[in-house]
Amino acid sequence: MLEDLKEEVLEANLALVTEGLVRLTWGNVSGIDRESGLFVIKPSGVAYENLTAGDMVVVDLDGNVVEGEMRPSSDTPTHRILYREFEEIGGVTHTHSVNATMFSQAGVALPCQGTTHADHFYGTVPVVRELTPEEVEADYETNTGLAIVEAFREQGIKPMEMPACFQKYHAPFTWGKNAMDSVKNSVALEVCAQMGMGTWQLNSEQQGIPSHILDKHYLRKHGANAYYGQK
Amino acid sequence: MLEDLKEEVLEANLALVTEGLVRLTWGNVSGIDRESGLFVIKPSGVAYENLTAGDMVVVDLDGNVVEGEMRPSSDTPTHRILYREFEEIGGVTHTHSVNATMFSQAGVALPCQGTTHADHFYGTVPVVRELTPEEVEADYETNTGLAIVEAFREQGIKPMEMPACFQKYHAPFTWGKNAMDSVKNSVALEVCAQMGMGTWQLNSEQQGIPSHILDKHYLRKHGANAYYGQK
Amino acid sequence: MLEDLKEEVLEANLALVTEGLVRLTWGNVSGIDRESGLFVIKPSGVAYENLTAGDMVVVDLDGNVVEGEMRPSSDTPTHRILYREFEEIGGVTHTHSVNATMFSQAGVALPCQGTTHADHFYGTVPVVRELTPEEVEADYETNTGLAIVEAFREQGIKPMEMPACFQKYHAPFTWGKNAMDSVKNSVALEVCAQMGMGTWQLNSEQQGIPSHILDKHYLRKHGANAYYGQK
Amino acid sequence: MLEDLKEEVLEANLALVTEGLVRLTWGNVSGIDRESGLFVIKPSGVAYENLTAGDMVVVDLDGNVVEGEMRPSSDTPTHRILYREFEEIGGVTHTHSVNATMFSQAGVALPCQGTTHADHFYGTVPVVRELTPEEVEADYETNTGLAIVEAFREQGIKPMEMPACFQKYHAPFTWGKNAMDSVKNSVALEVCAQMGMGTWQLNSEQQGIPSHILDKHYLRKHGANAYYGQK
Repeated sequence: MLEDLKEEVLEANLALVTEGLVRLTWGNVSGIDRESGLFVIKPSGVAYENLTAGDMVVVDLDGNVVEGEMRPSSDTPTHRILYREFEEIGGVTHTHSVNATMFSQAGVALPCQGTTHADHFYGTVPVVRELTPEEVEADYETNTGLAIVEAFREQGIKPMEMPACFQKYHAPFTWGKNAMDSVKNSVALEVCAQMGMGTWQLNSEQQGIPSHILDKHYLRKHGANAYYGQK
Repeated sequence: MLEDLKEEVLEANLALVTEGLVRLTWGNVSGIDRESGLFVIKPSGVAYENLTAGDMVVVDLDGNVVEGEMRPSSDTPTHRILYREFEEIGGVTHTHSVNATMFSQAGVALPCQGTTHADHFYGTVPVVRELTPEEVEADYETNTGLAIVEAFREQGIKPMEMPACFQKYHAPFTWGKNAMDSVKNSVALEVCAQMGMGTWQLNSEQQGIPSHILDKHYLRKHGANAYYGQK
Repeated sequence: MLEDLKEEVLEANLALVTEGLVRLTWGNVSGIDRESGLFVIKPSGVAYENLTAGDMVVVDLDGNVVEGEMRPSSDTPTHRILYREFEEIGGVTHTHSVNATMFSQAGVALPCQGTTHADHFYGTVPVVRELTPEEVEADYETNTGLAIVEAFREQGIKPMEMPACFQKYHAPFTWGKNAMDSVKNSVALEVCAQMGMGTWQLNSEQQGIPSHILDKHYLRKHGANAYYGQK
Repeated sequence: MLEDLKEEVLEANLALVTEGLVRLTWGNVSGIDRESGLFVIKPSGVAYENLTAGDMVVVDLDGNVVEGEMRPSSDTPTHRILYREFEEIGGVTHTHSVNATMFSQAGVALPCQGTTHADHFYGTVPVVRELTPEEVEADYETNTGLAIVEAFREQGIKPMEMPACFQKYHAPFTWGKNAMDSVKNSVALEVCAQMGMGTWQLNSEQQGIPSHILDKHYLRKHGANAYYGQK
């Protein structure tokens, strides 16, 4: 079942290690097959070096495990909500990459300080509020997903234009067209967060680039007339 | 004697290198066999790339070398006290990993700033006081262990809920269920210390996460009803 | 056509990865053959690990693709202007290396704080202004090159004495005698930028070394009487 | 001639790369044979990956090249002075490792902030003044060595108790019992400098550890009754 997607999701999880986004088992990637409404995700707490495509767990959008011997990632309900509510996304990545986690822990949003950011994120990466005691008690991981969705809807942010957020006191979530694309957005977020720390150390007044530069860089990679990369 | 434990302890010492926790010979890991009351530790000042399981030194809880051709780590008396006084622990790691050592040198405790921390440490990682001239003179390494034990008892901290401390002017010690688990706690401490530096750079007011989030994360990995990882 | 140059440019692009200057596809190097007036550049958005010499694109100084199956880097017009206006240069590198990008984003010039800098850059690395909305609209990448040239001419900076600049809100450009030399200048710029962050953290008053030390270091490597390296 | 020493010096130069102390060709190590009064040093500006033992250059204490096809490191006169004036040393290392260079550029001495430092350096690592225009003009590299010797003599510092200094506006020099030992001191200096940056970020008042801890750590590794490592 979904063998190609399992391979893709495996490869994307292994990229977390090669890209330096995870230590120990602190990260997980999933990818969805929109036709069947099933997504594939890393099993919980398994070391990356031991993962095989066959270990991947298949889950439906109601949260039922459809195939797989192991428990899916403990963050599976968060992925599920993101897929259910953000219909245009095809992959989700959660890591505790150090610089992006600093922003999450500090509760500080990251404005677009330069073109590295503009190439991936169309504006300020938002902070999503922490959960209330009641939300944590009721269903922590599901409510984490709902808090992200709430933040994006309330602020009118389009998920594919801003495929990233900082979960307060926790860590980043990113998404994308597919599993690997969501990992690339995690790389971009981590690097932009690192650059943000240093940019503010040099110039504490930097609060974002002019909008005409943001538009240019975002749209040359993502707009209808994009000309970055190969056709 | 204790061949399996020697292999485990060797592997845990080598993980110090692959996890980037040590330079030169600045770190050591041990593991204990509670049945025999013997622990196995790295020999002193030997390069990691040359270590074999046969080089490991077996020591009893009175500090006698029971087996081994080489001198045990100069920090052996500290490990011995931790095993004697913290009966629930199975492994001890000492490193000079850079970020955790910054906290040790600065004498600054690390509050739980986020879920990365909450997944491993149930509250603030404490600073253990430096030794007096008399304690250094009498038996430096033994008294280092006693100062750690004193700090945990006086502050009512349970060693398995807080498997880490910053020894003032020195460096971190961590422990865990076994040798490798103590290394994983060293990794977590190092990363949380690094994140702490950046979190405070972004938001100097951050003094810890709400207790309901700390409880949730710690207990989903460590409580009686833990559901992280495989059964 | 230009097979040796293609190999050189390929090798220089791969050095971006081994030198840690790029993530994902965020960088490109080109090299020029002055005799034919043709330059060779990386194709746009292709992963470094998949690049071959045959993938390199040959472009003339009017910006026409002369040979190559793939689209050249989206930054090709910037390279073109630099080659056309700075006749003494033989290679150009553009990256988003993190520390140099922090200076670009912050809009802060880097004075010569020490001999590492003096060995490569004869004075302060300048910030080049961001483009106006009209310049972005008309031809973003060409005007980026023209803004660099304008800055160097207005400030009387010689390109081979200062083979680097920070493009404001964007990232660094460097150049050199050939493709690999421009990469080496990117390495030097990245390291000097990193050192600059820490130097100012330790001593916020440091605004540059005495001119006699700058002269000595720059000239022992680059002057008519240079004696660094082999003859 | 001195084939074993050439191998040792080669290995020590290669360790600069594996220990992350150098980029490009920014570092050199030498070792001396005290019996013959000859020292062996890296050739100038040669990439580390291409070095062979046969490339090493043999120089006498008057600065004459005794054997070798290539020019010795441009810093050779500095090494020569250190060997001539500090008779107890057997190896010298010069790098531009980033954190130690930050201290050099900032002109800030590094007090002993913890035991990592105390294990290698008995007190504060000093800053050596920059050269005057006359000294630079007359013989830059020789006078660099003389400035180091002057600083140590004026401040009554023993070279083997403090095998390191920060050359102002330049970079660190370290030395040791032999070539590899001087590299290890460069590693220790780099790490202590990095830790120093973070320690002061956490606690700007930290100005050094109590003397009884400094004494204990330094002497357990280096004193007459040292007990660290194997006999």
